Amino acid sequence: MDVSAVYHRPTDSFAYPVREDALHIRIRTKKNNVEKIDLLYGDPFEWIDDKWATYEASLSKTGSDALFDYWQIEVKPPAKRLRYGFFLKNEDEQILYTEKGFFTEPPEDSGYYFCFPYLHETEVFRAPEWVKDTVWYQIFPERFANGDESINPDNTKDWASEQPSASNFFGGDFQGIIDHLDYLKELGITGIYFTPIFKAYSNHKYDTINYFEIDPQFGDKETFKKLVDKCHENGIRIMLDAVFNHSGYHFEPFQDVLTNRAASKYANWFHISEFPLKGGDRPNYATFGFVESMPKLNTYDPDVKEYLLEVGRYWIREFDIDGWRLDVANEIDHQFWRDFRREVKAIKPDVYILGEVWHDSMPWLRGDQFDAVMNYPFLTNVVEFFAKENISAAEFTDNMTTVTQLYPATINETVFNLVGSHDTKRILTECGEDVQKAKLIYAFMLTFTGTPCIYYGDEIGLTGDTDPGCRKCMPWAEEEQNRELFTHIQALIKLRATEKLLANKGQLTFLPVNEDSQVIAFSKTDGQKVVVVICNNSAEQQKYTLPFPLKSRKITDLKNGSEFAAEADDLFVSLARYDYAILTF
Amino acid sequence: MDVSAVYHRPTDSFAYPVREDALHIRIRTKKNNVEKIDLLYGDPFEWIDDKWATYEASLSKTGSDALFDYWQIEVKPPAKRLRYGFFLKNEDEQILYTEKGFFTEPPEDSGYYFCFPYLHETEVFRAPEWVKDTVWYQIFPERFANGDESINPDNTKDWASEQPSASNFFGGDFQGIIDHLDYLKELGITGIYFTPIFKAYSNHKYDTINYFEIDPQFGDKETFKKLVDKCHENGIRIMLDAVFNHSGYHFEPFQDVLTNRAASKYANWFHISEFPLKGGDRPNYATFGFVESMPKLNTYDPDVKEYLLEVGRYWIREFDIDGWRLDVANEIDHQFWRDFRREVKAIKPDVYILGEVWHDSMPWLRGDQFDAVMNYPFLTNVVEFFAKENISAAEFTDNMTTVTQLYPATINETVFNLVGSHDTKRILTECGEDVQKAKLIYAFMLTFTGTPCIYYGDEIGLTGDTDPGCRKCMPWAEEEQNRELFTHIQALIKLRATEKLLANKGQLTFLPVNEDSQVIAFSKTDGQKVVVVICNNSAEQQKYTLPFPLKSRKITDLKNGSEFAAEADDLFVSLARYDYAILTF
Repeated sequence: MDVSAVYHRPTDSFAYPVREDALHIRIRTKKNNVEKIDLLYGDPFEWIDDKWATYEASLSKTGSDALFDYWQIEVKPPAKRLRYGFFLKNEDEQILYTEKGFFTEPPEDSGYYFCFPYLHETEVFRAPEWVKDTVWYQIFPERFANGDESINPDNTKDWASEQPSASNFFGGDFQGIIDHLDYLKELGITGIYFTPIFKAYSNHKYDTINYFEIDPQFGDKETFKKLVDKCHENGIRIMLDAVFNHSGYHFEPFQDVLTNRAASKYANWFHISEFPLKGGDRPNYATFGFVESMPKLNTYDPDVKEYLLEVGRYWIREFDIDGWRLDVANEIDHQFWRDFRREVKAIKPDVYILGEVWHDSMPWLRGDQFDAVMNYPFLTNVVEFFAKENISAAEFTDNMTTVTQLYPATINETVFNLVGSHDTKRILTECGEDVQKAKLIYAFMLTFTGTPCIYYGDEIGLTGDTDPGCRKCMPWAEEEQNRELFTHIQALIKLRATEKLLANKGQLTFLPVNEDSQVIAFSKTDGQKVVVVICNNSAEQQKYTLPFPLKSRKITDLKNGSEFAAEADDLFVSLARYDYAILTF
Repeated sequence: MDVSAVYHRPTDSFAYPVREDALHIRIRTKKNNVEKIDLLYGDPFEWIDDKWATYEASLSKTGSDALFDYWQIEVKPPAKRLRYGFFLKNEDEQILYTEKGFFTEPPEDSGYYFCFPYLHETEVFRAPEWVKDTVWYQIFPERFANGDESINPDNTKDWASEQPSASNFFGGDFQGIIDHLDYLKELGITGIYFTPIFKAYSNHKYDTINYFEIDPQFGDKETFKKLVDKCHENGIRIMLDAVFNHSGYHFEPFQDVLTNRAASKYANWFHISEFPLKGGDRPNYATFGFVESMPKLNTYDPDVKEYLLEVGRYWIREFDIDGWRLDVANEIDHQFWRDFRREVKAIKPDVYILGEVWHDSMPWLRGDQFDAVMNYPFLTNVVEFFAKENISAAEFTDNMTTVTQLYPATINETVFNLVGSHDTKRILTECGEDVQKAKLIYAFMLTFTGTPCIYYGDEIGLTGDTDPGCRKCMPWAEEEQNRELFTHIQALIKLRATEKLLANKGQLTFLPVNEDSQVIAFSKTDGQKVVVVICNNSAEQQKYTLPFPLKSRKITDLKNGSEFAAEADDLFVSLARYDYAILTF
């Protein structure tokens, strides 16, 4: 047995409470190296009685990637305290893995074992329940719809009259969104994530001038309130974008520092190496990236912190928004986010806190900061496999498994899945404008675990390269919309709402990939019912044999509601190019 | 190369700020499997320019244990942001390890690499500076000295007239400690850790009756204030024991619940399954262990939390204490400790917060909760190797390395090292009463990294089995004290104060162990000067050859101040049974 590949530490994704009386314990072993793992566990204060030996239970293998097998067990420690070790077993050996290493005989002293000292009900990770059922729609407000030309900014271009650039404006606004709420209802989405709406300089509004004002090109606070209320009436939640890492150049405190230098009462609001401030390629003050017009805010300063926390509270308190998406969240200190969580959850306990973190996000997902992060690894894998066909089906399932195993299962349920945003190429463009491929991708995302988000216009076939190309004006003439794609996504959203296992109610497992096949499949189950999603990511027709004994069982095809029963021992599904199946039994 | 044994994650002990401009990046590889590791790193926002490729630096191997090699590098990310990967190299291969796996060619996309998104100066782990130089002395107040017989509890026995039991009293008190401050000054200790002093029922006082009162058998608040002031005048800090996991049976709120049941205003102060309360083997309320007289406090309840936080603040604010040792700290929720840290540090920023955690303590040492934990793994290894000789020199250095690699280097400097306490056998008893072995153990602890603690009486040869045996009365007649041991420990404390590398100023490395030898050695260096400590843990004379080129270098023997120069290429040190050497060059 290769014990050097075994990893467990009683924290993070390896040990966490799932309910007030139950924990998940997980372990990773070298792929195909361990056949069975049993958990030996007990209460540390009963250990001396040897009663612990009566508790022994097997872990399940929940997934594998290129290098490792992942195992999990749900444990109910009777008095909420837990000491435990892992019996790693294969044909030749049985080895006990503990905090103090590997043993052939179980040590008697409970102090040798791993410890999860106490299951606190307050430490069960609980993202807002509503998020699990939400299908998001991301709106870049400047480009969704222009409903009030009277507030157009200077030099507003006619809608879609030219390609989006870094600096042009088309006059999208709140009234435009209100005017098209029926469209969103028809699509079936239940949450809108807005890129920034506060007063700012650019068309993307990530360079805030005033965090307490609506940008006048979008409307006023009254219109925004109307928008939120109308959305709520229609069962649509609202999430705003909090750009707290940096302000814009025209943010009043920054302007004050430019003018008054060290004498400014805001001198400590930024990270300044020396006065006077100098911009250019390498500003002498901290910035987002090296962008001189985006000075980094000093979130250690109590005044800055209080200012930004009040922003967080204000828009919830006054406008009843439902979520905050946190821009460049990974570059702000953890203590700021702990305080932010405390403050906003005090006003609205089920507000959703979503961090923009593109990499391994565990340090923000320990229950004290975010409810979820934007799942960019999901996006990368989907693009590499489905859109670009750069990786194999096996690599895809390996990569997806690696990512889901990075986090507790409780977190995977509310992670924000996306296949494109204002920061990436449009998914249809990534697919070489093959609509069938885009349809397959949406079928995958809308049946997968997590809370999915559709980038405005993706649903009617909008194309576009990376920023600014991905920020085109939404076409409203039906003939400019791909209604087939719209209907496809609409149907999937409806199915996700009806078939609860497709949202976040079941345990997801990738099914085996056949060698040289471009078919991937996963199942979700609540222990009784099973849903299987099979995606044929190739231009050829493919067969996939379901790895379940299904003979004579009633199987329902969820795409069309038809029912059938397998007659042979094996059931295989035949899929056309870039087609998929969703079956339940 | 065995990549499945490689482990890194950009958090905890693997990536952490050490100064406001520098990070430690660490990685673990299979023992003797990788020859060289280079870090490839850069700013994520410069990546596209390929400038990142100009940053490449080698990690140092900082230690090995039975299974792994551990590597570390200090990095200064120019704009505080860092993306990085590891080039793992040996004769046959060069593999790049990133967040997205292992590659033979470095991926171009910075998103593939590990990310430490921002080095926040506020996230540099900073335990109080004074702790690094402190030598602690643990006092169990009932047994140190009886200085005021007028406050003896009922049935107080004559001092040391019988063996300690679970329930007898000998009348130790604050006046007794004040009377013997000269003794402590003579010994040279600079901090006292008191087991609980608040009003309680038992002789150990872990069953609090009132957290705002001194136990009357120890004195009153005036005497305690005098004790703290006199200690401070003499350069001795004071740490108290906070028993917040559970109260005593006679705690007024618990008594109220016993009487008024569900109607008690304190009904939510505890974790109660049903009324009326029932004790016995398995109380129907949560307890410490299964001890009916120690009801677990409900630290999720805002009133309980505020009550306990005020305890934390009160003794600092009113009595200027310097530290809190947190009893059963691992069984209280993390949010409580985050709030506790915020509250006590607001009053006294350099107060020391020390948790009682016997196992892997990383979840409490992320900067938001404790400054350090009691280092029980240190105790276990010292007892197993030095006292009981159950493990080999190689196993000892392996185990010690495993433990130090569990935590950031910044944490190892203030971890609380102990070789015995009120909860364990006396170290001299563990040594079979061989004083020479105890002397060797103290030589090891007082030269090692961490903040060491002497359990009262150990320094004059007190013996005793586990609780209650280890809680004997301190003998004050010189003829009952082992003065040789006292002088030995006194000299080591003095040396630790003079030779800064012996306290926490240098990087510690274990030196190679010779096969079949019971000699262990470690070095500490600040990059210029080196101190080497060599311990012969055998009953035979042993030679140890120093693995340094020392020919003609001036070497100082710190035990006696003598100087000499090595004449041969190799310098070996000859050590008598259970003897040690401390050399510097």
